[in-house]
Amino acid sequence: MTPKLGIPELQDFLAAEFPQVADDFVVRNVGAMTLDLTMAPQERHLRPGGTVSGPSLFALADCGVYLCLIAMVGPEALAVTTNASIDFMRKPEAGQTLLANVRLLKLGRSLVVGDVQIRPETGVDLVARATLTYSRPRSA
Amino acid sequence: MTPKLGIPELQDFLAAEFPQVADDFVVRNVGAMTLDLTMAPQERHLRPGGTVSGPSLFALADCGVYLCLIAMVGPEALAVTTNASIDFMRKPEAGQTLLANVRLLKLGRSLVVGDVQIRPETGVDLVARATLTYSRPRSA
Amino acid sequence: MTPKLGIPELQDFLAAEFPQVADDFVVRNVGAMTLDLTMAPQERHLRPGGTVSGPSLFALADCGVYLCLIAMVGPEALAVTTNASIDFMRKPEAGQTLLANVRLLKLGRSLVVGDVQIRPETGVDLVARATLTYSRPRSA
Amino acid sequence: MTPKLGIPELQDFLAAEFPQVADDFVVRNVGAMTLDLTMAPQERHLRPGGTVSGPSLFALADCGVYLCLIAMVGPEALAVTTNASIDFMRKPEAGQTLLANVRLLKLGRSLVVGDVQIRPETGVDLVARATLTYSRPRSA
Repeated sequence: MTPKLGIPELQDFLAAEFPQVADDFVVRNVGAMTLDLTMAPQERHLRPGGTVSGPSLFALADCGVYLCLIAMVGPEALAVTTNASIDFMRKPEAGQTLLANVRLLKLGRSLVVGDVQIRPETGVDLVARATLTYSRPRSA
Repeated sequence: MTPKLGIPELQDFLAAEFPQVADDFVVRNVGAMTLDLTMAPQERHLRPGGTVSGPSLFALADCGVYLCLIAMVGPEALAVTTNASIDFMRKPEAGQTLLANVRLLKLGRSLVVGDVQIRPETGVDLVARATLTYSRPRSA
Repeated sequence: MTPKLGIPELQDFLAAEFPQVADDFVVRNVGAMTLDLTMAPQERHLRPGGTVSGPSLFALADCGVYLCLIAMVGPEALAVTTNASIDFMRKPEAGQTLLANVRLLKLGRSLVVGDVQIRPETGVDLVARATLTYSRPRSA
Repeated sequence: MTPKLGIPELQDFLAAEFPQVADDFVVRNVGAMTLDLTMAPQERHLRPGGTVSGPSLFALADCGVYLCLIAMVGPEALAVTTNASIDFMRKPEAGQTLLANVRLLKLGRSLVVGDVQIRPETGVDLVARATLTYSRPRSA
C-alpha cells in the first residue's frame, strides 16, 4: 500500500490545518504505513531541569499518527483521537531533536491504531512509546 | 488525610515551576486526595473547527494530577509521569472553560495513580477521562 | 435512560453466551448506565501467595462493561473490545469476593467507553481500575 | 545483555509458579531483552463464534513480559503488574496457535516496561498489541 501524499504535501497540510504546531514538526520520511517526524524542542516544550514536557511528547505522537493516516488515505474528513496510551521511559535532554517513528498497526474503515516510538535523533534508547486510536468518520 | 498545601501555595508553585503553562490553569478546589483545576482555552489550544486539542487536554490532566500530589505531600523532589492513558469522548467547544476533577486513587511510596475527569465547567457530559501514574523518587 | 434488561435476563445471557465464565460472576445491581458485578475467586484465579491474577481481574472488568452495555441496549449483534487500560493498585487477598462497579462514560452509536472500579466487597480501597472501549457493529 | 535463564529453566519456573496456566504456554525463543511465547487456545479460552477471548490474550501478554523479565534478571522476589494497556485489532480464529513477541523497552531498577505483539503463528497481521509495566520490589 503506497502513500497517497509525500513529504511536501504533508508539510503543507500541517501548515494549513495545524498552524499552531506546524513549525515544531518536520516530516522526514513517509513509507507504507510508516512515517518519521522530528521535533526540535523549543523553550515552551521544556520543564524544570530542561527536560521535554509530557504534553509535548504527547503532541509529537498524536501529530505523527494523524499525519501517517493522512499520508495513507489522503486529506479526508476529520478523524479524531479517541484513545491514547503513553509510557514515558527516560528523560530526554533539552537540546536534543527528538525523532518519532510512527507505524500504523491497523488501518480499518472505522478505527485506526498507530504505534509511536520516540527517541533522540542521534540515540537508541527510547524516551517514550505511545499507542493512539483514531476514529474515522462514517462516509456519507 | 489533609492537604499540606492550599490554593495560593499551589498557584505559586505552578508559577515558579511551570511558568509556560501557569497562566492557563486555575486551581479551584483542594481536598483530601482531590483537586479541581480549570483551563480557559486560548487560541494556541485549539484545533480546526474550534475544538480543544488533545495535547491541551492531556496537559490539563497531567498538571492536575501533579498538583494534587504536591498538595498532599508537599513540594518534594520531582516526581515524573511514567504512564498515561486518556479517552477522548466528546469534542469540547472552543469558548468553554474546562474543569478537571482530579482524584488520587493510590498514593504509594513509589507509585501514585490519579484519575481525571474533564468536562465543560457548566456542563455534565465528559469530554475526556485520563489515568496517570507518577513515579516518586526514592528518598535518600 | 432505563436499562432494557434486568438481573435475571443478564444472568441468563451470561450463561448462554459465556458458559466458561458464567459461574464466576454474579450481577448484583443494574441501573442507568451502571452495573455491579461480583466475582468469588476460585483456585484457577489465583497466583502464588494467594492473590487474584491480573487476567482474572481483567476478565471481571471486561465482562462487567459488556453486561452493562447489553443491559442498556439489549442483546444486540456482537460488540467487541477494542482497547483496555487497567491499573493494578493493591493486591487483593485470596478469600475475598471482589466487587466491580461499572459505569458507562459514553454510549455512542459506534464506540462505548466504560469505567470499572474493583475493590473487595467488604472494603473501600481500590484493587484495580480499568477503562474499556467497545466497538459496536454498524447496523445494516 | 545476555539472558540468565534459558528455555528449560523458564518452562520449569512457569510450571512451579503458575501451575494453572503452565500448560497453556510454550517458550519458543529467548534473547537479549526478547522472548517468544506461544499459546494453543483451548476450549476455555474461546468466546462465541470461536474467537479467543480478551482475557486469554491479556494472560498471554502478561505472562510473556513476566517471563522475559525473569529471563533477564533471574527468578527474583515477585515483581507485580502495575499497568497494562492493550489494543485488540483483529479477531483470531479458534484453531490457530498464537505467537507473542515480547520485548522489554525498559529494564529499570524499579520499573520494567514490556511491549507485546500477538499474531497467529503462521500469519503476519497483528491480533493484539499490549504494553505492560511491572514494578520490581525494592531490594533489602
